[in-house]
Amino acid sequence: MPQTGLMMNRPLLISGILEHAAAQFGEQEIVSRETHGPLHRTTYAQAAQRARQLANALAQLGLKAGSAVGSIAWNNHRHLEAYYAVSGSGMVMHTCNPRLHPQQLIYVINHAEDEVVLFDATFAPLIKGIAAHCPQVRAWVCLADAANTPAIEGVSSVLNYEDLIHGHSAHFDWPDLDETSGAALCYTSGTTGNPKGVLYSHRAIVMNATTACLPDVLALSTQETVLPVVPMFHINAWCIPYAALLSGTKLVFPGPKLDGPSLYELMESEQVTISAGVPTIWMGLIQHVEQNNLRFATMKRTAVGGSAMPMALVAKFMDTYGVEVRHGWGMTETTAVATMSNLSRTDRQKPAAEQHAIVAKQGKTVSGIEIKVVDENGQTLPRDGSSQGELMVRGQWIVERYYKSDTSALVNGWFPTGDIATIDTQGTMQIRDRTKDVIKTGGEWISSIDLENAAIAHPAVAMAAVIGIKHPKWDERPLLFIVRKPGQSLEKADILEFLATKVAKWWVPDDVVFLESLPVGGTGKVQKNELRKTYGGVFS
Amino acid sequence: MPQTGLMMNRPLLISGILEHAAAQFGEQEIVSRETHGPLHRTTYAQAAQRARQLANALAQLGLKAGSAVGSIAWNNHRHLEAYYAVSGSGMVMHTCNPRLHPQQLIYVINHAEDEVVLFDATFAPLIKGIAAHCPQVRAWVCLADAANTPAIEGVSSVLNYEDLIHGHSAHFDWPDLDETSGAALCYTSGTTGNPKGVLYSHRAIVMNATTACLPDVLALSTQETVLPVVPMFHINAWCIPYAALLSGTKLVFPGPKLDGPSLYELMESEQVTISAGVPTIWMGLIQHVEQNNLRFATMKRTAVGGSAMPMALVAKFMDTYGVEVRHGWGMTETTAVATMSNLSRTDRQKPAAEQHAIVAKQGKTVSGIEIKVVDENGQTLPRDGSSQGELMVRGQWIVERYYKSDTSALVNGWFPTGDIATIDTQGTMQIRDRTKDVIKTGGEWISSIDLENAAIAHPAVAMAAVIGIKHPKWDERPLLFIVRKPGQSLEKADILEFLATKVAKWWVPDDVVFLESLPVGGTGKVQKNELRKTYGGVFS
Repeated sequence: MPQTGLMMNRPLLISGILEHAAAQFGEQEIVSRETHGPLHRTTYAQAAQRARQLANALAQLGLKAGSAVGSIAWNNHRHLEAYYAVSGSGMVMHTCNPRLHPQQLIYVINHAEDEVVLFDATFAPLIKGIAAHCPQVRAWVCLADAANTPAIEGVSSVLNYEDLIHGHSAHFDWPDLDETSGAALCYTSGTTGNPKGVLYSHRAIVMNATTACLPDVLALSTQETVLPVVPMFHINAWCIPYAALLSGTKLVFPGPKLDGPSLYELMESEQVTISAGVPTIWMGLIQHVEQNNLRFATMKRTAVGGSAMPMALVAKFMDTYGVEVRHGWGMTETTAVATMSNLSRTDRQKPAAEQHAIVAKQGKTVSGIEIKVVDENGQTLPRDGSSQGELMVRGQWIVERYYKSDTSALVNGWFPTGDIATIDTQGTMQIRDRTKDVIKTGGEWISSIDLENAAIAHPAVAMAAVIGIKHPKWDERPLLFIVRKPGQSLEKADILEFLATKVAKWWVPDDVVFLESLPVGGTGKVQKNELRKTYGGVFS
Repeated sequence: MPQTGLMMNRPLLISGILEHAAAQFGEQEIVSRETHGPLHRTTYAQAAQRARQLANALAQLGLKAGSAVGSIAWNNHRHLEAYYAVSGSGMVMHTCNPRLHPQQLIYVINHAEDEVVLFDATFAPLIKGIAAHCPQVRAWVCLADAANTPAIEGVSSVLNYEDLIHGHSAHFDWPDLDETSGAALCYTSGTTGNPKGVLYSHRAIVMNATTACLPDVLALSTQETVLPVVPMFHINAWCIPYAALLSGTKLVFPGPKLDGPSLYELMESEQVTISAGVPTIWMGLIQHVEQNNLRFATMKRTAVGGSAMPMALVAKFMDTYGVEVRHGWGMTETTAVATMSNLSRTDRQKPAAEQHAIVAKQGKTVSGIEIKVVDENGQTLPRDGSSQGELMVRGQWIVERYYKSDTSALVNGWFPTGDIATIDTQGTMQIRDRTKDVIKTGGEWISSIDLENAAIAHPAVAMAAVIGIKHPKWDERPLLFIVRKPGQSLEKADILEFLATKVAKWWVPDDVVFLESLPVGGTGKVQKNELRKTYGGVFS
């Protein structure tokens, strides 16, 4: 029998992060773009005080440990205070994606049993449409002061955040919770069926946030300034709102302004060194920087995830602008980051193109996470960099079952991600496709992502997407969608000829559809199910 | 009632660190100075294989989960393999300080019930003296091959490590332990009474090791090379043997060669970037570097702990040699680092002398740890940077009770450290003295450490120590011990005159004793109890 260690039993709690930050880094800054425009400046110490005030205010509204509080909000300082106040007092912080269809928003708010919903003024029209369908919500709290809180026709229970917390004590005794208690709830975007909720524990979040600060992950510290573009309504903004306070990193929140010029201005004026977001955001940023012949004065590193970053964009960040790119992988079910790419010391001696290829992969697991790839029978595939199979994950911050579900989401203790990936001998993982997007043709697989990346390398292509179309002989064949860059001419024969020089002959799509735009969902990803609805059929 | 989170339940285990390292960083190097001289090179993947072989070999010797394995050994790769093999298989890794008195060594080996003891050939004479008194030890295993394993007269059960693991499978199914299981055991040096054991859990070690890698702590990553001078027999070498593998950091072990020239040679030849040790080690290193007009080519940072680093040494490292100094604080009872000093961004704009003063403090708590200072009645003192009291600590990796003790070591949930400290408004902690060393005079306290630092700033002083001597009127008064630098003349009047310009008048010692050397204990600290035995008495 193993002996039992004789150490203190102290739980990992989100309130612990807040109080650590207030005590060690009380003067550290939080800069936040208000929804109505101006920049707001505060400190960790002040944010902690206001979080305690909010905890008292929520208690006075009758909420208790176990209650759920929803948010439909941008990345800003009040949303941050709510993260700590709600979870810290034993309630569940339910972040809602405002880009969900209103019917889905109603579904998740009711499914989560939110008793209060925090929202930014931007989303007042949305609240107007859904409030009547969410009877258990006793207050809709606008994250603003009275002057910037709109009246919402037909919704009487609208409060404003500043009045709500005003006068409440800045002292609050955070409960000594079990570290496995539920702290935050996020629903998958649910492209098919109803969204499914993941109830993160305090332990999962504190561990992920600690790991996120490591030098080979986000490298957060008192020396850095981080601007999370990844939304706080999507996978906890990669846990940056927790990791920043844990490590004493200056925080800059962009509010609703996610366009290239606004982000650039904020990065320069606040001397941001680290950022994180999806590739489409970085495309907008780089376009602005290129068109205006600008440079980054302080930016060191950008982490990217959500979808694959085109190699050309990796090259621009790293070679033209001297900003290191790291590619992460995670999903709603993994709390935040599970793998991250990074250049080893020997990698840094390699030619630029090889370096880009390495960081464009999804990288190695961070400590606390294990991965494997399996074939269709569940057999583990070799770590040879070429064997493709479904990516399975397990570890400290991985879902076990969905919210209110009686059945485990796991297969033999591992979570099946729905991603197709390879892992090489050194543990580097690369996402090749989604299981539902990979094109199965003549017994082989074509990665829609690889094909899209090949197409986007053409100078006249702005966006590309590939779906599989049923084919009587080959099972499936690829269909390519192209959005041309403004003012560019490009025809079917041109792009197919170009692709024939880049990919295997049998990968070349059977047809090309030119569109003005692609349907993009709430998290910035192309919604291939929309393309399938319109263009799905059978190749003859 | 809080809801329960719906995440996987995966324990934090030391075997998880090893397998993470082997899978992600299998090619990363471990360079180790053999006890008989040459450098040995291996990789994480090979070390993991050999750790699994050792786990199989220990099982074949009849050891089981819960068994204890002792070590009396330097920092080397076999000791590292044992760290993982022993703890990973659910046994207790008991690291013994070879500088303990043989009677104390016998005591701790018997108290821990070690069934196997691993030792380096250096300590064969020690084993000869103690083996007969440790009847439950069934094998004494020399960390060497057959050729470098000495016969020990009168001890028949001597094995050598290489033969022991040879032929065993490199596959081992690490048990799925409870994370609160005991993993490692270390005894306090026990200056009074018998040494007391601290049984670290897997959870405590994994959490501490993760935190040790953070940018503001040791900043370990795949980009770095770390040379732990802090011994693996003392507070887990600050958990660097775990943290390095967790983060993929190249490891360089100095073996028995801890003198300035040997350390310098290893730092340069292996391009070491980060090191950690006690001030006396850094004094020897700097002396060698200065005398030979050398520079550090790759060293970025040195962490220091165990006792206060003289300001003059901080200045040399930082200003002359461009090596950042960070001062840590921890003790046997805190697994490893609990606080660490570091310069904030604004600190880095300050004059050099102010920067030295900041890093010479013991710094801020790392995430997971809380501290406070209390007066003699247990009342919490203000965080004003000047109120001195006993330092109390609690957190994720702090002892709750000593090994085989029935009673808690805590006071109201906090561990009383026996250190006198101050904490300032920004959470920066400074050790002022030990409760037993502080000199209580006329109702006020004189910090023996501050007085020693003032004395050591005199150019003719090599070492200094201060103890309190009973005084009929003032309760206690300070007595100063000085070791002169070679070839320097310095008399009592000179040093007292010098001190009068540096400290308050009532701090100036009543007398000075000049010695050829000071008694230094197993962990490199001056043993003031020895001085008290010889020189204690009453000032008249």
